[in-house]
Amino acid sequence: MKAVFLCGGIGKRMHPITEDKFMLKFLGKTLLEHQIETAIKAGIKDFVIICNPFNEEKIKNYLHPLKLKVEFALQKEPKGMADAIINAEEFLDGEIIVVNPNDVFEVTAYEKILDSRRSGCDAVLLGFKVDSYFSGGYFKLDGKGEFVGIAEKPGEGNEPSDLVNIVVHYHKDAKKFISHLKKLVSENDDVYEKTLGVMAADGNKIKVVTYTGYWFAIKYPWHILEIAKYFLDKEYGRISKTAKISPRATIEGKVIIEDNVRVFEGATIKGPCHIGKNSVIGTDVLVWNYSHIGDYCVVGYSTEVKHSFIGDNCWFHSNYIGDSIIANSCFFGAKTVTANYRFDEKTVKVNVGDKRIDTGLDKLGAIMGDDCKTGINASIMPGVKIGPNSIVGPGVVLDKDLESNKTISVEQQYLIKDNTIKYTSKKEELMKRLLKGK
Amino acid sequence: MKAVFLCGGIGKRMHPITEDKFMLKFLGKTLLEHQIETAIKAGIKDFVIICNPFNEEKIKNYLHPLKLKVEFALQKEPKGMADAIINAEEFLDGEIIVVNPNDVFEVTAYEKILDSRRSGCDAVLLGFKVDSYFSGGYFKLDGKGEFVGIAEKPGEGNEPSDLVNIVVHYHKDAKKFISHLKKLVSENDDVYEKTLGVMAADGNKIKVVTYTGYWFAIKYPWHILEIAKYFLDKEYGRISKTAKISPRATIEGKVIIEDNVRVFEGATIKGPCHIGKNSVIGTDVLVWNYSHIGDYCVVGYSTEVKHSFIGDNCWFHSNYIGDSIIANSCFFGAKTVTANYRFDEKTVKVNVGDKRIDTGLDKLGAIMGDDCKTGINASIMPGVKIGPNSIVGPGVVLDKDLESNKTISVEQQYLIKDNTIKYTSKKEELMKRLLKGK
Amino acid sequence: MKAVFLCGGIGKRMHPITEDKFMLKFLGKTLLEHQIETAIKAGIKDFVIICNPFNEEKIKNYLHPLKLKVEFALQKEPKGMADAIINAEEFLDGEIIVVNPNDVFEVTAYEKILDSRRSGCDAVLLGFKVDSYFSGGYFKLDGKGEFVGIAEKPGEGNEPSDLVNIVVHYHKDAKKFISHLKKLVSENDDVYEKTLGVMAADGNKIKVVTYTGYWFAIKYPWHILEIAKYFLDKEYGRISKTAKISPRATIEGKVIIEDNVRVFEGATIKGPCHIGKNSVIGTDVLVWNYSHIGDYCVVGYSTEVKHSFIGDNCWFHSNYIGDSIIANSCFFGAKTVTANYRFDEKTVKVNVGDKRIDTGLDKLGAIMGDDCKTGINASIMPGVKIGPNSIVGPGVVLDKDLESNKTISVEQQYLIKDNTIKYTSKKEELMKRLLKGK
Repeated sequence: MKAVFLCGGIGKRMHPITEDKFMLKFLGKTLLEHQIETAIKAGIKDFVIICNPFNEEKIKNYLHPLKLKVEFALQKEPKGMADAIINAEEFLDGEIIVVNPNDVFEVTAYEKILDSRRSGCDAVLLGFKVDSYFSGGYFKLDGKGEFVGIAEKPGEGNEPSDLVNIVVHYHKDAKKFISHLKKLVSENDDVYEKTLGVMAADGNKIKVVTYTGYWFAIKYPWHILEIAKYFLDKEYGRISKTAKISPRATIEGKVIIEDNVRVFEGATIKGPCHIGKNSVIGTDVLVWNYSHIGDYCVVGYSTEVKHSFIGDNCWFHSNYIGDSIIANSCFFGAKTVTANYRFDEKTVKVNVGDKRIDTGLDKLGAIMGDDCKTGINASIMPGVKIGPNSIVGPGVVLDKDLESNKTISVEQQYLIKDNTIKYTSKKEELMKRLLKGK
Repeated sequence: MKAVFLCGGIGKRMHPITEDKFMLKFLGKTLLEHQIETAIKAGIKDFVIICNPFNEEKIKNYLHPLKLKVEFALQKEPKGMADAIINAEEFLDGEIIVVNPNDVFEVTAYEKILDSRRSGCDAVLLGFKVDSYFSGGYFKLDGKGEFVGIAEKPGEGNEPSDLVNIVVHYHKDAKKFISHLKKLVSENDDVYEKTLGVMAADGNKIKVVTYTGYWFAIKYPWHILEIAKYFLDKEYGRISKTAKISPRATIEGKVIIEDNVRVFEGATIKGPCHIGKNSVIGTDVLVWNYSHIGDYCVVGYSTEVKHSFIGDNCWFHSNYIGDSIIANSCFFGAKTVTANYRFDEKTVKVNVGDKRIDTGLDKLGAIMGDDCKTGINASIMPGVKIGPNSIVGPGVVLDKDLESNKTISVEQQYLIKDNTIKYTSKKEELMKRLLKGK
Repeated sequence: MKAVFLCGGIGKRMHPITEDKFMLKFLGKTLLEHQIETAIKAGIKDFVIICNPFNEEKIKNYLHPLKLKVEFALQKEPKGMADAIINAEEFLDGEIIVVNPNDVFEVTAYEKILDSRRSGCDAVLLGFKVDSYFSGGYFKLDGKGEFVGIAEKPGEGNEPSDLVNIVVHYHKDAKKFISHLKKLVSENDDVYEKTLGVMAADGNKIKVVTYTGYWFAIKYPWHILEIAKYFLDKEYGRISKTAKISPRATIEGKVIIEDNVRVFEGATIKGPCHIGKNSVIGTDVLVWNYSHIGDYCVVGYSTEVKHSFIGDNCWFHSNYIGDSIIANSCFFGAKTVTANYRFDEKTVKVNVGDKRIDTGLDKLGAIMGDDCKTGINASIMPGVKIGPNSIVGPGVVLDKDLESNKTISVEQQYLIKDNTIKYTSKKEELMKRLLKGK
């Protein structure tokens, strides 16, 4: 039995987050590593990772130290699941479980699949029970509850069942499945799904098992916050022995503090929160409400990080970072603020491609790619996206998205005049009042 | 003996504070309730409240739970004191004390009046001894010190005495007084005062008693700070048993903390101060110097509130609120600042109607009506007034008043260029330095 | 033996710092006092201070209370060292040591000079051994290592030796030396240096002793930070008995806290740092990294001062002051920030006269003269100079130098519209969430 992870796709809707979704790090591990751990818990020992030319090297570097039984296939172009599996043909034989690593789910998903295959099915598919419309594939079942096919995005009201297709799919005979995949010709990237329908029609026994545990599919950047919450909720709190925490700091609730973290006097961390290894939480900083901070970050004096996901190697300084997603190696000027709430109290909308997507979130801050910088006293409005390697200048009020590799600055109109003020020195008096505490 | 409270007037000079002055809440009670308590302390048990159509319902709602012996009269239009009393005629008989609830004074004021009436006067008026000019009504007395009349705003140097008229007036026979009021015809709203003069001339015995206790008449919005100070000075400190105070918070001096308040770690409250019920004082917040915060407020992380009056249901977040008056349900974006001191160190001027009034105050911040919002990094200059339901956008430097129901935003001129910076990565080095504490 | 301090010059490159360099105060004493103390440690008891008309009075006022054996000469115009000494002729006889008080060095410099003169030299000069080019005077020595002359700014690669001339110069016979000085005519201000060469050629015995201890010549304003570091490194930590330190404050490392200082709750001072007498370090303030704060300063709530030199009588309020030099009596509006790091991570450049000087510093903030003010939310960019008595308005992003006696304000383009937002009140819900800690 091999688990086959489909890592060859490209998440276009994740801009400005350029990292592959499954390579985002939660609690110090990539999502892919978490997925592999889940599979291992279910008893799976052999892995096939189908990479693309851009991530192959990086994935190998991450997985190599784990000493897994893992093989790597290469999908040269992102042409869908069927293409991916066909590209991995040489590694696939007998039983396989095909997994989309951008779907986050619990070990019970594997367990249900593995239990069901004992009944001698040719394939077992995972169906997540929904009670409201989800824009994905729905299972079509016949009168006896047998699998018939998959309806992609049927539209609300037209759902053929209440079971959404999650790609945790068992196939009894990989070679046979691949030969089916090769037979089908389609102009869309739905060969995989259609093939399942064809196989069912041909008399193959394909079962759908219902899954009711946690499931979340990362589609948009703000979904990262949801995944961070999931991992934070799952884990126990822990403070590494190598972390140095000032006795004047406050650590409250479930907080995960990794190796070599330093927490300075007056800092407050209210869990659930994660502080990655070698990061510094500075004097009087507040980190709270499902904030997830990566490695080698410096959260400088008087910064608040609330319900935000911060990558590695970011620097903050007297900022407010609320409900934001900040990728790696970003540098914030002192007193840059992310706004996270609209004046009209409506849910925050975000541009994705050429669409304006309603996130459904009351509160959402900035979404910032790798290697960005902001100037002092900059203001970033709710749901604004900033492309990698861009700079938001001091004093800018940014209420539109900023492309990658750009700098934006504000051209102020100055008025310079002679200073004609004659002071009647009151400072001394003020000082006296202050010394009296008034 | 009934105390008659004149609550039918409208305080035009209080804009943008729309609440009736006597309905402003100090230490959790409306000023009117405080006034009634003062009267009760002096032995008065029956009350007549003369409302107007706009405040009748609200006043009744406030006073109902107090289970007082109270009757309500309605003054349909704000046509002055005489009109008010004539409108309340049906409730008035025998001895009354007419009180302007916007004048704040001590119980001794009542006691002096009540003592004096024993000498058989038709009326006893309260005279506040001033040593500098006050723009109000002055008592005119004859050679024997008997009341002759009232000179309204005589102008500095023309004061007929050093006694200013405070409307805490005893009348022995309400019906008779009302019949006098009805007789006099005037185009101004001075019928009440003139009637007293007429009555004196007619041989009625009208006495003026001198009062030297606390007295303050709320006329302009910034006077609210003075009244807050009065109540804070009067009261003992207390912390409700239902309040939750972090052991890492500092509470110093005379602080009144009401029910269900939460004070977070690192917060500092330096009395005299009041924190209304259900309010939250967040992490690292500083509240000090006669600040008076209402109910259900959230003073978020790293905010300073200094010598300010804050209504109910306000939200702050990393703000500086200094010497400001903020009405109910205002919402401040992170790092909005109120300036409270002029560059030229002169006293702060405020627009009232079409006049520019010198407040005489070195320090005065913003004056903000109900339901306002500010954006992140907004700046509000000293003495600026913001009308109810208005919004000051992010990054705005507001140095003029803003009308009600408006939004003001700044149109920045941006310069967007390609980011051509080639980094020689110094971050790692910086990190090392920081870890060494440099 | 008299030490002769040349205090008549004017440091043009120090703008906007108008104080004479040797009158800048470190650890509560002027640099001149420190220099005199160093001389006293070396056994010198008699002093001649050569002033100019602008500083004579002030220097006398400072030195008078010290009860030194000191005489004052007046150099009417800043015409160089020879002119200075000739002007002080009446006070000079026998052995003298001529000292430039803008050079900071250790007592061993005097000791080396004093030791060497015992060998019967006519003059002993101090040579600082450098291993990279310094833009100053280099000693020219003959084959036997005997002094021949001084080469002013020879240019890199043309240095006649590795010994730079520091003006700590012994002369055996002042009168004789002065007669030499008077003989030489030069159009430049190099009479002093040339005279030494002439004397050597005439057979006078002039020795150069090599000095390897600490030496720093203040030339540009940012050099003040270097001198502050020197004094802070030299001194032990101490906290005056009259200082009041909140038990909730953190004092860490070598910190010098002078008389009557107050440190409020939540404040953190991480040495090496100096807090001058009567200064106030407010609630939640952070002072660290070789910050040197003068007397009568108020560092208000939530301010960070990092690696900065602050004169006397300055006021801060929720600011970030990093790597900055702030002269006396400056007043910062709330949330003014000094940027100290360039987006391109290059070293900071500063305008000096009509040149652009590379400071060689990765981090440098603002350089501000006496009596300046800033408005709320103002932003000052790295290396920007602000002339004395100037004002930076609220919201200004200052990326150019500002002359003396100016005000700069930003003219924002406003957009005022009707507020048409209809709220579906979510505040209550938000409040509930917050009370649950979410």
